[in-house]
Amino acid sequence: MITRDDLAAQDAADPLAPFRNEFALPDGVVYLDGNSLGALPKTVAARLQSVVAKEWGGDLIRSWTKHDWIELPARLGNKIGDLVGAARGQIVAADSTSVNVFKALSAALQLRPDRRVIVSEAGNFPTDLYIAQGLTGLLGRGHELRLVDHADVVGAIDSDVAVVMLTEVDYRSGRKHDMAAITAEAHRHEALMLWDLAHSAGAFPVALDSCEADFAVGCGYKFLNGGPGAPAFLYVAKRHQHDIAPALSGWMGHAAPFDFVADYSPAAGIRRQLCGTPSVLAMTVLETSVDVLLRVEMAALQDKSAELADVFMTLVEQECSGCGLTIVSPREAERRGSQVALRHDEGYGIMQALIARGVIGDFRAPDILRFGLTPLYQQFTDMWDAVAVLKDIMATGAWDRPEYETRAAVT
Amino acid sequence: MITRDDLAAQDAADPLAPFRNEFALPDGVVYLDGNSLGALPKTVAARLQSVVAKEWGGDLIRSWTKHDWIELPARLGNKIGDLVGAARGQIVAADSTSVNVFKALSAALQLRPDRRVIVSEAGNFPTDLYIAQGLTGLLGRGHELRLVDHADVVGAIDSDVAVVMLTEVDYRSGRKHDMAAITAEAHRHEALMLWDLAHSAGAFPVALDSCEADFAVGCGYKFLNGGPGAPAFLYVAKRHQHDIAPALSGWMGHAAPFDFVADYSPAAGIRRQLCGTPSVLAMTVLETSVDVLLRVEMAALQDKSAELADVFMTLVEQECSGCGLTIVSPREAERRGSQVALRHDEGYGIMQALIARGVIGDFRAPDILRFGLTPLYQQFTDMWDAVAVLKDIMATGAWDRPEYETRAAVT
Repeated sequence: MITRDDLAAQDAADPLAPFRNEFALPDGVVYLDGNSLGALPKTVAARLQSVVAKEWGGDLIRSWTKHDWIELPARLGNKIGDLVGAARGQIVAADSTSVNVFKALSAALQLRPDRRVIVSEAGNFPTDLYIAQGLTGLLGRGHELRLVDHADVVGAIDSDVAVVMLTEVDYRSGRKHDMAAITAEAHRHEALMLWDLAHSAGAFPVALDSCEADFAVGCGYKFLNGGPGAPAFLYVAKRHQHDIAPALSGWMGHAAPFDFVADYSPAAGIRRQLCGTPSVLAMTVLETSVDVLLRVEMAALQDKSAELADVFMTLVEQECSGCGLTIVSPREAERRGSQVALRHDEGYGIMQALIARGVIGDFRAPDILRFGLTPLYQQFTDMWDAVAVLKDIMATGAWDRPEYETRAAVT
Repeated sequence: MITRDDLAAQDAADPLAPFRNEFALPDGVVYLDGNSLGALPKTVAARLQSVVAKEWGGDLIRSWTKHDWIELPARLGNKIGDLVGAARGQIVAADSTSVNVFKALSAALQLRPDRRVIVSEAGNFPTDLYIAQGLTGLLGRGHELRLVDHADVVGAIDSDVAVVMLTEVDYRSGRKHDMAAITAEAHRHEALMLWDLAHSAGAFPVALDSCEADFAVGCGYKFLNGGPGAPAFLYVAKRHQHDIAPALSGWMGHAAPFDFVADYSPAAGIRRQLCGTPSVLAMTVLETSVDVLLRVEMAALQDKSAELADVFMTLVEQECSGCGLTIVSPREAERRGSQVALRHDEGYGIMQALIARGVIGDFRAPDILRFGLTPLYQQFTDMWDAVAVLKDIMATGAWDRPEYETRAAVT
């Protein structure tokens, strides 16, 4: 039996514990949704205020050079690279994840002009699939989006496949793909590999270069704590960069944007993947947040995440047995991202009841309760406190109230 | 002869003068570059701080509904619509101008599948041309980008033309196209019309609906004062919205994004033009800035802009005659956007010398000195003070200094 005292002792011994104080967390809340919107680092407000007042307000247009705004997408990209195992010059921070998926997929199809299949997972995060559908519709060349189940991905890769597009961590179950193995399998068939790191970057170590990924995208507002709708990022392996004529060929990806010539010629390297003018304020916030993460070993985050998850699952079994809650996430840490998912037919109402009582996770249709683990700002006792509220809700059936019946948009 | 006292009197009588105090302008600077980066409205800092601390930090993920973040792109789009003559439900704030050009052009080609020509102006802002080049390259269907001079646009439109893409105000000369006349001419040939309002929105009245434009894009960080790299906007006339299958089909444009289904089905109306998750912080800043503009009649801005331009050009002639400076912008206000452009072979060095002395305009290759007029925060005496510095620089040849010889990136 785990007790709250055990967990308090574990918190006292936790070397990551001091980081909690670097985040602005509201009182009375156990925040288990950092995989949907990361919490606010306390350093953000002052940095943003300085960029707004001094750089924008005071130095105005001169800031593009004086404060090196123009380098932000590449500089920030390199910092993100340090978190996901990418050597310099292969990542830019830019646009949204969806737009970056479009860039990567269109590039992949360009590099494999004779192949007509995109392999993905039926349960992949929908926007990746939507973007593939829009792109293939736009091209009108009969590309097939081949969707298979999690376990059937490898079997679906053959010599017709141009690109395999997967999200490393399933956004519902938290189940993880083996990046190295699947990338190798894609390459064995001369297909390209695009990884979506939305639930990986900033959560645990990723080894983009060493697994020889061709493309990757990721999200700035989840584990990177970059704020709502933060810029996303795009990785293109160095060996491909020069061969890509970008589909989204905006001026920031031009070899000489300030020469204002009429013909597009792409910048060298990863910069050609830039398109329009970057949001300096949004990038500043993301950079400030990434700077916090750079002070931590990703492996240490992963270890604590695994322990938090284990505690959470054990407590659900210990405290909520017989409540009809099923643990969906794999129990083995190496097969799981930084979250725990539970299943219940009344999942939506239960999550609303949890949120009303300050335990914030999120719901994913049709029946998943998702709890994100963010070791930088979570304590072991948070797991106890969350499960205690869950236990009470399950025991009293407190979710079964009229205000929870209307299904509203839950992000 | 104009004197500084005349201009001081004009300032004293100016009904827009109080707005200057709503912007944070540095001392000792005459800012004539609001058409590259608009100045900072004083209301921005507090609003941004509140969204960061209370909404992101305090309410976390709940803010998507509690603070209606999810409606920001459409709500802000409607506000921008009030500035550019678009009825509700036709504009979203989203992405960058470049990405929105891609959306509009790809939609236009979809609506005119049997036509192969995009008409634009050789001197159009390069990113619009680059995007057209990238798109036609991606499609690989032999589309032609037909580039002509400003005066030859109408003659270039024929029954092969799918879409005419023009920027209303030339970013170098400030010369204006007649939106109504060219749109009518495009429609006479059953071509579609895409207007780039980068130098129009927030500067003077635009009548998108009444001139029956099909598409428009615009920039958030120039006359809308939305901060560096602010979100852009996209207009699609109501009559076309339903017929477009978006090329950039991200989840925020889905009919039911939070149902997480695998198949894309577009949202009704303009919302299908949304793609990824919007940057809430960047949109908040833009909305705060647009709110300032909504308190002004665009016609009043246009009138003061015309007077400022007239004073500026008259002063250049009066004070700097014989200096080799040529006025490039049209003298007639109705043919000119909210800027004055001068030409000089040493334009780059002269602009650097001006900036070093606190008169901030910008340089556009090869030889254009560009001075943006932003009546909300400029005074008539600013025109005197700017030309006085210009006169001194021209008289002393003070631009001819080594540090100006290295041509750096000037945004």
